[in-house]
Amino acid sequence: MQYAEAFAVIRRIPIFRALSPGDQKLLAFSSAYLVFEAGEALFHEGDPTDSAYLVDDGLVEVCLHRGTEEIVLGQLGKNELVGEMGIIRNSPRSATVRAVGTVKVLRIDADVFLHAVTSNPDAALGVMRHLSDKIAAITQRYEAIKRHASGWEMPEIVEC
Amino acid sequence: MQYAEAFAVIRRIPIFRALSPGDQKLLAFSSAYLVFEAGEALFHEGDPTDSAYLVDDGLVEVCLHRGTEEIVLGQLGKNELVGEMGIIRNSPRSATVRAVGTVKVLRIDADVFLHAVTSNPDAALGVMRHLSDKIAAITQRYEAIKRHASGWEMPEIVEC
Repeated sequence: MQYAEAFAVIRRIPIFRALSPGDQKLLAFSSAYLVFEAGEALFHEGDPTDSAYLVDDGLVEVCLHRGTEEIVLGQLGKNELVGEMGIIRNSPRSATVRAVGTVKVLRIDADVFLHAVTSNPDAALGVMRHLSDKIAAITQRYEAIKRHASGWEMPEIVEC
Repeated sequence: MQYAEAFAVIRRIPIFRALSPGDQKLLAFSSAYLVFEAGEALFHEGDPTDSAYLVDDGLVEVCLHRGTEEIVLGQLGKNELVGEMGIIRNSPRSATVRAVGTVKVLRIDADVFLHAVTSNPDAALGVMRHLSDKIAAITQRYEAIKRHASGWEMPEIVEC
């Protein structure tokens, strides 16, 4: 049942639709279908990155903690990918992600994810498009807030 | 001479280092080595996207124009890639990029770029890493400005 659900989720996601049935099955076999309750964290900022998550149902919230302050960067829902950046950058989790209500997700093993999305040109383009869309969305929000915060000196870009 | 310079620039860039010599040569043949003077635009926001640029020397500035206002999103320098997002998203230029001083760049044809970076797993991962680093850098700036602009209501994420 878990495998069937995993396979169904994977086949629904445009990034993975281009994969061969064999690679889709490998992804499904290496994945776990999990349920998180409201407030539970899928992972915390600073954790080692061992997986990516596909949201099957519900909403997750991406947030940062700076001292006592919490900054919510955004919410992600059905069919959205989260946690893939740490895999790509080979770095710890850059933010905390937690369930807003009850959330059903597919957790995909990091190595299997990386192999799948770099060995197939269409899947590779799908991930690049997903990341570029993220940049466009964040830039739009950055632009909006910058116009409202004018007069404040912008920090230098820190190239990572 | 133009081809030799193009080939040298391409071989220096981590994203393209993984390509076969044949693919590196194809990239070099399909590229133009160009010089822009201070203030000249490599492209304008809204232009059709037909190429990506690799900076070989000098600095370029990425900016948006909203009415009479200009928002500078950042600067990019030697060995940095610019203009690839429109290729990946198959969309017009999302910002204007102009030379800060004299700038030497390699302009790579969009189709050749896309084929090169999706057909080779290491090049694909290189582009994904480049985009993820951009997200991390913008998020960091967004986070900083958000903390200084607290009290202002953040706009919803617009998923693209």
